[in-house]
Amino acid sequence: MAHSSAPQPDDCAHALAELRRQVPLVQCLTNIVVAQWTANVLLALGAAPAMVDNPAEAGAFAGIAGGVLVNLGTPYQETASAMALAVAGAARGGRPWVLDPVAAGALAWRTTLAEQLLDDARPAVIRGNASEILALAGGAGGKGVESVDTPEAALGAGMDLAKRHGTVVAVSGPVDHLTDGERVVRISNGHPWLTQVTGVGCALGAVMAGFAAVVDDALVAAVAATATLTVAAEHAAARSGGPGSFAVALLDELADLRPEVLAAEVRLA
Amino acid sequence: MAHSSAPQPDDCAHALAELRRQVPLVQCLTNIVVAQWTANVLLALGAAPAMVDNPAEAGAFAGIAGGVLVNLGTPYQETASAMALAVAGAARGGRPWVLDPVAAGALAWRTTLAEQLLDDARPAVIRGNASEILALAGGAGGKGVESVDTPEAALGAGMDLAKRHGTVVAVSGPVDHLTDGERVVRISNGHPWLTQVTGVGCALGAVMAGFAAVVDDALVAAVAATATLTVAAEHAAARSGGPGSFAVALLDELADLRPEVLAAEVRLA
Amino acid sequence: MAHSSAPQPDDCAHALAELRRQVPLVQCLTNIVVAQWTANVLLALGAAPAMVDNPAEAGAFAGIAGGVLVNLGTPYQETASAMALAVAGAARGGRPWVLDPVAAGALAWRTTLAEQLLDDARPAVIRGNASEILALAGGAGGKGVESVDTPEAALGAGMDLAKRHGTVVAVSGPVDHLTDGERVVRISNGHPWLTQVTGVGCALGAVMAGFAAVVDDALVAAVAATATLTVAAEHAAARSGGPGSFAVALLDELADLRPEVLAAEVRLA
Repeated sequence: MAHSSAPQPDDCAHALAELRRQVPLVQCLTNIVVAQWTANVLLALGAAPAMVDNPAEAGAFAGIAGGVLVNLGTPYQETASAMALAVAGAARGGRPWVLDPVAAGALAWRTTLAEQLLDDARPAVIRGNASEILALAGGAGGKGVESVDTPEAALGAGMDLAKRHGTVVAVSGPVDHLTDGERVVRISNGHPWLTQVTGVGCALGAVMAGFAAVVDDALVAAVAATATLTVAAEHAAARSGGPGSFAVALLDELADLRPEVLAAEVRLA
Repeated sequence: MAHSSAPQPDDCAHALAELRRQVPLVQCLTNIVVAQWTANVLLALGAAPAMVDNPAEAGAFAGIAGGVLVNLGTPYQETASAMALAVAGAARGGRPWVLDPVAAGALAWRTTLAEQLLDDARPAVIRGNASEILALAGGAGGKGVESVDTPEAALGAGMDLAKRHGTVVAVSGPVDHLTDGERVVRISNGHPWLTQVTGVGCALGAVMAGFAAVVDDALVAAVAATATLTVAAEHAAARSGGPGSFAVALLDELADLRPEVLAAEVRLA
Repeated sequence: MAHSSAPQPDDCAHALAELRRQVPLVQCLTNIVVAQWTANVLLALGAAPAMVDNPAEAGAFAGIAGGVLVNLGTPYQETASAMALAVAGAARGGRPWVLDPVAAGALAWRTTLAEQLLDDARPAVIRGNASEILALAGGAGGKGVESVDTPEAALGAGMDLAKRHGTVVAVSGPVDHLTDGERVVRISNGHPWLTQVTGVGCALGAVMAGFAAVVDDALVAAVAATATLTVAAEHAAARSGGPGSFAVALLDELADLRPEVLAAEVRLA
């Protein structure tokens, strides 16, 4: 699959319109901290969340979902089993899935889980901060859930990781860096309050799964998701007084964001 | 137990005043997505939530709770065991319990769980969307957690289900339909943003358990709960800018709603 | 360890400045209801939450965290195992940990869990309402998660409990009572809406773990945490219309609270 050109603002606008038209079913196997927030972000945006994360149901459901998120924020034995089954189900059904390897490198068990999932099937997107991407690529890891590395420093490792697994790698940070191993896209929208609300990155992974359900090019999906969240964040920050009111306003702005405004305001490079 | 007349607006007002006076203890065995939201809805309204959902404690606690909610949103082996014990404990203690069979029909394991719970003991209320009620009644099921059927189309199946289990069935939708198998009540309050906030239906099930703790007639309890949430939603929507601010305002309005305003504004038919 | 004087307003201000400077990593083993809220409170305040609560990772992580919270709100077999390992890891690593024995006395299994954790290692702080503290001290228990006793009535038992375990006991209520068995501090800031938002007490335990990571005197840490949350709550209540908007405003005010304002407004006795 060759893509000759880098994603453009109009691709983001088109993807957002398609997401709203198709209302993709996004299965989320995510953590106890961000499950509500993730569902509310998807609903505000126009997608249909379904938090099916038990082993008895996750595999079959992944085969009919529009897209699947696997987030390793708070894995347990039972949900980790469900994740493996969901990835297998998504692979069988040809559905795109997104891996968010929260705290990979800093914590041993989940790092192994992430590597096993990557061995099992090719994700559409791997989304993480710089430390997590460096750890999965075989480099050093971070401490806890915060990145101690910059996206710029992780780009090379991210390109290697993308090539090795035939996937898109999205490295979040002040400037988001996304790559499919050949093309590189940088997005410079956003606001510092995004780091003071828990689960914005986690929700971004779910939004990527939603866009991947409606767009063929996974790099476009990941870029459109990042653009949508960070442009909406700029609108929300402009009328908020702190991280609490910002999170509330972000949901309003996600519901309100028009594709043409997204195209006009996203800063891609 | 025969109820000669359909619930009226004044019954809703009386039930709300009683709930505030008695502050019923509502045990919730619910899902990881909506647990916080459900507790906050109960607290704002004036009830006392208690999320006791492990097998070692759930059964005994159900025997002393005012009402019990069993919600199948994200069941796991351990919480499913706790649900069976809670239902048995509620039955032994004569406490009302509410079943919310999230995604019944669409997902196999939880459909079986719902059927087993119904075999074990009679709930005061079964609350779901049209697809879930149709599935439990023996008809076709939905896809994911969203309903693909209308409440009107599910009313007949809901009446059959209510008669078969000696319970009240509440079918949510643009117009909520509630029945005990003989009486039918339609409530036309609400706002589309209710469908863009995760867990409003799940919280409604908990509120029904709270009202069932303070009102003898389970149909009145289910109607009063639905009326309270949807009338408060109209107040909240009138001063909100999107689904994020609407959810916040809904908590404020639930705390603020006076029984006489509820009686004046609820639209029953 | 002898502390000659009771904590003063300036100690609270200093602790808050230190927390913002050091950004302590706070590991939270907490319940499914309040995990998101707890993380958002820590982030707004300036700490770094990490919800590591599985047995494979919790013990090792506790040895490197700045502070650890163990909250018994919704224990399961797997998370209860993780809690025991985290307490052992914290003890080995010399990291302060906080015990929040939610509903101790009212529910049997978690009361035993709390007692076992106290046998395993000395916490920096035990935080609870009056009924929970009385239960741990060997007295009567409460009903559900709400206290049926006053902080004043639990102070004697709290002092005994503090001496027996060499820890600080914090009893929350309209006036918070904190003691290390010798010194007693009363804090009279706050607002009734704090009891209408789920998880404020749970988040307070996490904030205490954050302050204990940056301050040597655990009584100062517990007092500074309580002061910070309750003074911010007064600011938030002054511009809110109910418990929903209050919770949002509280996050904004936690991010905004300056140490000198904290020192000027806290009411210690």
